[in-house]
Amino acid sequence: MERYEIAIIGTGPAGLSAAITATIRNKKILLIGNALLSEKVEKAQVINNYLGLPSVTGKELQEAFLQHLKELDITITETKVNTIYALGDYFAIDCGDNNTYEATCVILATGLSVVKPFKGELENIGKGVSYCATCDAQFYKNKVAAVVGFSQEEESEAVFLSEMADKVLYFPMYKTDVSLGDNIEVIYGEKPQSIEKEEEKICLVTQQSKYPVDGIFLLRDSVAVQQLVPGLKLVDNLVEVDRQMQTNLKGLFACGDITGAPYQYIKSAGEGNVAALSAVSYLNKKK
Amino acid sequence: MERYEIAIIGTGPAGLSAAITATIRNKKILLIGNALLSEKVEKAQVINNYLGLPSVTGKELQEAFLQHLKELDITITETKVNTIYALGDYFAIDCGDNNTYEATCVILATGLSVVKPFKGELENIGKGVSYCATCDAQFYKNKVAAVVGFSQEEESEAVFLSEMADKVLYFPMYKTDVSLGDNIEVIYGEKPQSIEKEEEKICLVTQQSKYPVDGIFLLRDSVAVQQLVPGLKLVDNLVEVDRQMQTNLKGLFACGDITGAPYQYIKSAGEGNVAALSAVSYLNKKK
Repeated sequence: MERYEIAIIGTGPAGLSAAITATIRNKKILLIGNALLSEKVEKAQVINNYLGLPSVTGKELQEAFLQHLKELDITITETKVNTIYALGDYFAIDCGDNNTYEATCVILATGLSVVKPFKGELENIGKGVSYCATCDAQFYKNKVAAVVGFSQEEESEAVFLSEMADKVLYFPMYKTDVSLGDNIEVIYGEKPQSIEKEEEKICLVTQQSKYPVDGIFLLRDSVAVQQLVPGLKLVDNLVEVDRQMQTNLKGLFACGDITGAPYQYIKSAGEGNVAALSAVSYLNKKK
Repeated sequence: MERYEIAIIGTGPAGLSAAITATIRNKKILLIGNALLSEKVEKAQVINNYLGLPSVTGKELQEAFLQHLKELDITITETKVNTIYALGDYFAIDCGDNNTYEATCVILATGLSVVKPFKGELENIGKGVSYCATCDAQFYKNKVAAVVGFSQEEESEAVFLSEMADKVLYFPMYKTDVSLGDNIEVIYGEKPQSIEKEEEKICLVTQQSKYPVDGIFLLRDSVAVQQLVPGLKLVDNLVEVDRQMQTNLKGLFACGDITGAPYQYIKSAGEGNVAALSAVSYLNKKK
């Protein structure tokens, strides 16, 4: 079995950035992910803060990324990773296509995994369901938005949104008293069950009620990497890394949303670059 | 005096990325730097790993950045920052244009500081060593000052000083004939080695001689980071930050090359984004 120097798991901005830098540094890489790259990127309406690509749509950014891969002859292996085993000198990557790949380093860039999406959530991405207030708040002038916040850190996103929107309904998925701005109504103890499209509105349906609004922001922070890499150290469900993107496992690096907020494309791309160069340096030291 | 919410120092990829994200988050920003952005970017032949902009020249990347600023109506204040004072609730930014700007947060993105302070320089800041004639000339009535000018632009500072002081010794660190006022003695070809305190006087020591004066002005294009922000924690001449780009001083963030390797454009842009969002979150908490 051929052994790769660097296996990169994930084809969002973090994984792609790692792939292009590792390729330029002449490393033999395996890039596992989706040939369509990232659904989250593709469905973004407009991205204003990816420096150098002003007001780009998700689709355009996607195309720019694909073009970059093409120019460097980088191919994507489409499969699902089940488990990554740290075997001391190398990693065994057990995949859904019944293959086990081997690599000296691994870069984890799988993004935030939606542990259990709400019924109706995935179908309505870009049609009222959003994951980033910083990105999309601008569309909510004179409108009403619902925000489901899975941790206290998301409150500042709700506040930002409320500066644009007429009104924000905030559903905290944690137990603390929340006190935000005047036009933010905090709704306690109601767990969303599903999301439904209803004419011009999108509805957040809880066990108790139904809230027709103009948009729903789902601000989660949990990942399902617990089973992905046995022995990997997590903090609050995120992979713990240092500033070189090194995890607690030698030769295993992580970058992008999986390492925590802010959930931003350019932050992920920057971290992918750092992870790749750390992996290169790890490989050089092993020689 | 109007107070800015976020002052960003530096117009390389880190500072620009911070500026666009802070602007999108509706913060009142002050961006201090060079209207030509960054010489380091502009002179790059080709950049292969800025994800989304494959094989771009430094000039093209520069233009893409300028276009991004233009679309968001971001302007650059061209001045030189002498010192940033952390005053508890806000920062005072003392500039070469004789302005002192105020900001609640500061994002430091000045790049790798290439300045190597003279032996004895840092110990004598405020005890005879100064970096701004415009600011301190008033203290030199009937006194003698030495001025070390690192570029021709500094000559006007020496002239201004000579209008106050009895005498100015001018040490040009560049090769041109210098002709200034009557009470300015130009000393050619002597490179300062160190600075020594001697009773009431401070001495500029060159390889050839020793000049006891009342004050020494070191007029460089850029400022050593040690001297830029009193109290800022450095490690190996780099600013120490955590993963949120927070320094040891509350409200002061740093990003890009100034925080250490790898020295890469996309890494800097990613960090600028993180620093801006950390500053936004800091501002929200203060409210």
